[in-house]
Amino acid sequence: MKRIAFMIGDPSGIGPEITVRCLEEYPIPEDIQILLVGDRRSFDRARHIIGSNLAVTAVTNGDPVSGSQRFSFLDIPVEGDEEIPFGAVSRAAGAEVYKSLQKVLGLIDKKLVDGFVFAPFNKEALKKGGCPYPSELEMFKAHFNRPDVPGEISFADPIWTCRVTSHIAVKDISSYMEKERILGTVEFLYKEMQRFGLGEPRIAVSALNPHGGEKGMFGTEEITDIEPAVRAARDLGIEALGPYPADTIFLRLRDGEFDAVVSMYHDQGQVATKLLGFDRGVSIHGGMPVAIATCAHGTAFDIAGTGKARPTALIEALKVVRSSLSGTGS
Amino acid sequence: MKRIAFMIGDPSGIGPEITVRCLEEYPIPEDIQILLVGDRRSFDRARHIIGSNLAVTAVTNGDPVSGSQRFSFLDIPVEGDEEIPFGAVSRAAGAEVYKSLQKVLGLIDKKLVDGFVFAPFNKEALKKGGCPYPSELEMFKAHFNRPDVPGEISFADPIWTCRVTSHIAVKDISSYMEKERILGTVEFLYKEMQRFGLGEPRIAVSALNPHGGEKGMFGTEEITDIEPAVRAARDLGIEALGPYPADTIFLRLRDGEFDAVVSMYHDQGQVATKLLGFDRGVSIHGGMPVAIATCAHGTAFDIAGTGKARPTALIEALKVVRSSLSGTGS
Repeated sequence: MKRIAFMIGDPSGIGPEITVRCLEEYPIPEDIQILLVGDRRSFDRARHIIGSNLAVTAVTNGDPVSGSQRFSFLDIPVEGDEEIPFGAVSRAAGAEVYKSLQKVLGLIDKKLVDGFVFAPFNKEALKKGGCPYPSELEMFKAHFNRPDVPGEISFADPIWTCRVTSHIAVKDISSYMEKERILGTVEFLYKEMQRFGLGEPRIAVSALNPHGGEKGMFGTEEITDIEPAVRAARDLGIEALGPYPADTIFLRLRDGEFDAVVSMYHDQGQVATKLLGFDRGVSIHGGMPVAIATCAHGTAFDIAGTGKARPTALIEALKVVRSSLSGTGS
Repeated sequence: MKRIAFMIGDPSGIGPEITVRCLEEYPIPEDIQILLVGDRRSFDRARHIIGSNLAVTAVTNGDPVSGSQRFSFLDIPVEGDEEIPFGAVSRAAGAEVYKSLQKVLGLIDKKLVDGFVFAPFNKEALKKGGCPYPSELEMFKAHFNRPDVPGEISFADPIWTCRVTSHIAVKDISSYMEKERILGTVEFLYKEMQRFGLGEPRIAVSALNPHGGEKGMFGTEEITDIEPAVRAARDLGIEALGPYPADTIFLRLRDGEFDAVVSMYHDQGQVATKLLGFDRGVSIHGGMPVAIATCAHGTAFDIAGTGKARPTALIEALKVVRSSLSGTGS
């Protein structure tokens, strides 16, 4: 029996309702227990909105429960008696999310959970609620002491992407184009894809400049760093390809010529992945002790509480985490 | 009666065969004459490959022909007796294409044609054939003395895009982010869309940096130049919007929230447009005395001569040029 922690997300957003829909619609394999974590009142409110009778067993800590109990619930209550309103940033909700995240990371430390899925939360609320990190990625890196993790992996079945740089100005991208950094990202993605059962993935590496710089005519990073990084990855036994011009690499990925793309900067990858599968996209926090995944979309404040939100991407996140547990015994 | 010049493209590529297919499949409006320009032997070879009986009237100069003659052909023969092989760069073919382009530009000067469509040709062959310009865009700009034309417009019905910078290194993009240059591109696209009958288009302007720089946290060009350019465009009466983050602006464009996007650099726009409609994309050379358009794809050397190539994008190019002639009398 394996156990997946499942945080229901910010109570002011669609998190709790898509969590309920996810568990109603996706047939959880028999060898998996789900430990729900979050504000129980918000979960019950979501069940009511959807008209769900999903049964969960309340637990007061994260210790294992007996095998027949598929869904247990660890309540991390929002402080105060007021109900959290939908569609607005709430400090109290953010504080609850921060506490829930801390709780799950502790359970991972104690090896009481084997994977972690979370529904969306609001970064601004998280900050107001006392989280000192700009996002959960930095929190995870600090907690698990893994400062070298390059960043998020994006997945929209069957397409994988990861990027060498993320939240930096376009004028600074060039200074980050170092062979070792690019190689590190390729290796990172390779290892993560193996964790998710992908065997020997074909990983294409994007060029930085238009048309790949056309032999140095407009930009030389392909020659000085990207191509050497691809060669070094191949020397390590990774089926790395490229560098290929960015404007067609995603068409080739879509059409199955390779399994993954390592892009050089945020928008190069994000423009493509959002067009290729925004509604079902998954973000994976690789490089951590267990697989951690969430839906790529946010809290959707505009429709929170209406029951309209679809759990498609959250189900994909759960499937990804599930795939990391295969073949590791039970 | 209006007349459109239609260059059949490089004889070694798919140009002649998709030209024949285009004219077979697209019902040319009754008020339009097509003046085909190119190597007649290559055109006849393409008719033979496809099994087409399309009738054309040979003409020896570009003067108007009588109204009943829908398709006339101005032969610009490839030098020498050898047949041009398919699928290889040919100096002789490039020289013929260069001569054909010069011929059509001369006809535009004399107001003997009202629009210009061309099938794909190979840039390397064009250069070997004696063309001193890196591409046809520079040739057109020089010929018509329009040095300030920002660049190509991409169109995949109903989506329009244009970019502020094109073939420059990523490290240099920031230095091109000047308010006047961005405003000039917005104005250019606005005027061209009006030429194609688009009325008052809603033009969204992309940010440069990830998440639009998040209020200057990673990049300030949005604050210093892009947003001021959008405001200036609005002051001119253009429905300009943004700047919006690049990773979602194309989803919003696809979903109809606006009609066009001005992107800041090559891959920002090209990654998206190729994913949104590669097989039917059109490139428009705006800012010239008449509308000029071509298919966004190339000569497809790998399938040239097989008759397999589809004329979808070339038909779209012809439709675009046709739309510029509407309502201007006959």
